[in-house]
Amino acid sequence: MENTLSNEKEVPVFGWAARESSGILSPFSFSRRANGDRDITIKILFCGVCHGDVHFAKNELGHSLYPMVPGHEIVGEVMKVGQSVTKFKIGDIAGVGPLCGSCGLCSNCSKGWENYCSKQILTYNSHDHDGSITYGGYSNKIVVNEHFAIMMPKGLPLEGAAPLLCAGSTVYSPMMHHGLCQSGQHLGVVGLGGLGHVAVKFAKAFKMKVTVISTSPGKKEEALERLGADSFLLMNDQQQLQEAKDTMDGIIDTVSGPHSLYPLIEMLKTCGKLILVGASVTPPILPYMPLMSGRKIIAGSAGGGMKESQDMIDFAAKHNITADIEVISMDYVNTAFERLAKNDVKYRFVIDVANTLK
Amino acid sequence: MENTLSNEKEVPVFGWAARESSGILSPFSFSRRANGDRDITIKILFCGVCHGDVHFAKNELGHSLYPMVPGHEIVGEVMKVGQSVTKFKIGDIAGVGPLCGSCGLCSNCSKGWENYCSKQILTYNSHDHDGSITYGGYSNKIVVNEHFAIMMPKGLPLEGAAPLLCAGSTVYSPMMHHGLCQSGQHLGVVGLGGLGHVAVKFAKAFKMKVTVISTSPGKKEEALERLGADSFLLMNDQQQLQEAKDTMDGIIDTVSGPHSLYPLIEMLKTCGKLILVGASVTPPILPYMPLMSGRKIIAGSAGGGMKESQDMIDFAAKHNITADIEVISMDYVNTAFERLAKNDVKYRFVIDVANTLK
Repeated sequence: MENTLSNEKEVPVFGWAARESSGILSPFSFSRRANGDRDITIKILFCGVCHGDVHFAKNELGHSLYPMVPGHEIVGEVMKVGQSVTKFKIGDIAGVGPLCGSCGLCSNCSKGWENYCSKQILTYNSHDHDGSITYGGYSNKIVVNEHFAIMMPKGLPLEGAAPLLCAGSTVYSPMMHHGLCQSGQHLGVVGLGGLGHVAVKFAKAFKMKVTVISTSPGKKEEALERLGADSFLLMNDQQQLQEAKDTMDGIIDTVSGPHSLYPLIEMLKTCGKLILVGASVTPPILPYMPLMSGRKIIAGSAGGGMKESQDMIDFAAKHNITADIEVISMDYVNTAFERLAKNDVKYRFVIDVANTLK
Repeated sequence: MENTLSNEKEVPVFGWAARESSGILSPFSFSRRANGDRDITIKILFCGVCHGDVHFAKNELGHSLYPMVPGHEIVGEVMKVGQSVTKFKIGDIAGVGPLCGSCGLCSNCSKGWENYCSKQILTYNSHDHDGSITYGGYSNKIVVNEHFAIMMPKGLPLEGAAPLLCAGSTVYSPMMHHGLCQSGQHLGVVGLGGLGHVAVKFAKAFKMKVTVISTSPGKKEEALERLGADSFLLMNDQQQLQEAKDTMDGIIDTVSGPHSLYPLIEMLKTCGKLILVGASVTPPILPYMPLMSGRKIIAGSAGGGMKESQDMIDFAAKHNITADIEVISMDYVNTAFERLAKNDVKYRFVIDVANTLK
């Protein structure tokens, strides 16, 4: 029953694609696999613009496949379900994040850590089980195995929820895994962008004390007033760094540009945890001595598994957490990429796919 | 009752000291504080020669205080107890490791993590509560607060047990703290020296699978035959590195010289833990991407607290674990330092203080 029924046909899809490393997107027609037994076909309503989309579209990591349809923060309406689908029915609202497949057999998959499966299939710029290239959510429809779709809880505004499918899981997963989710703990959040502002919201929902750590003085008011952080630390203020030493239980570092980890490690209490979630092309120096002398750890984390992601979105719904977004039309996406490269957005662009992709 | 009774006198002591950064040791007479209410005075029987002793004697870390009496792997017989002492009586065998004091008030001290107290007092080359310089175990007597003395279990050969007070705690503490002590887990041990060979012994006592990781092919037979490791991995053999990928739950890295952490991180399974216990003067590059893509951690660890150290020595006694040692006379110590700098010892020198310090 794993095979596609013979009367199912490939799904014609329309989206926007980058054609080469300029990363400039333009309209693109393609097709997706026929909806299989375990698949659902989703009519895409919204798709977030992740910073990674810009990196991939411009081939900054060196393994981009063109034409590329980016987008892995997808929310839409289920319009078709395969005959073995159990989680969804037609009309449900489903989400798709960065993953659309994995081997399903390895020890990581068996633990619900599909995001660490060595054969994971990304929602775009990846090879699917059948060898075809995957295309993301800057498009009007997607076909996905139901295991890799999230049931979107009722009541959560969909445009603001879409970015949680990547940004939300990326910060929620390590917070839960490393126990940085306890009332009264003190969490530092480095960088107030797409990931960072969501981390602040989750941490406040966990009743943690939150310090936003940034190099931009202009973010202080936002951090405190708009996002409800308890304090703001300017990274280049030596006195503030000195005062922050040995005060935090954990730090979520969302910054992908080069920066020293020494001052961050020193902000941690004994046994504190520095969690790196921003992909860095230039690896930093390991802050060896302060790591040892405080029994501290540096942990890496990459996204979230399917169960974690469902838990994350349910938690977000319960606490009314959405990303702060700027809704854009599909044809604004190239401008959005330019603005994103300059961090000129608070804090996520979300494409109104259903109403603007023509 | 914290003060020394008026009829107590300073304790005359004889030992060997380094006078300047040549690190060459020679006979030295000095005195220790009078035995206070909570103090015990120990007649030193054996003292291990830690690699750190060489670094400190030669001022390689830049904060050596001369004259310096090294030695923080001390075992001896209790010859005097203060009136408030409860743990020891005269004639007991006590051990003293790298710590002889801490603030006793901070959150680290309250958790038994005296080794992470910011006001910790080291057994030598440190300032005691009264401002005086501490002198270590290359001497005939030591006065120490009973809290910082370990009760040596009966039946453990004292000369082989002495090095455990530093080397043993240094590897046992992070193994316990990070849960790398479960039967069936696979542990890598990098470097087969004073720390590494003890880590192998503890891991085998925990019924773990142990792989010794080394750059010296000559250590293979020792690792497998003498220490009972399950396998041996040569760090510069690309095929062995390839085969070892994704196989280990944890790695204890005891090497202090410069080396890349990338191959080590890649040996870890998802969520694997790389524990650094060898002090490195040249901090390595953080293996950023493999850390993230496998949800791995790098942890630092520095020694053990007093409760952990007592647990460690009791565990060692239960499993008949001692360090492999070469017993030397006091006047051989300068030669021992030279040999230690060339790693020419299996695996620890221990000075027979009682019989050779004249």
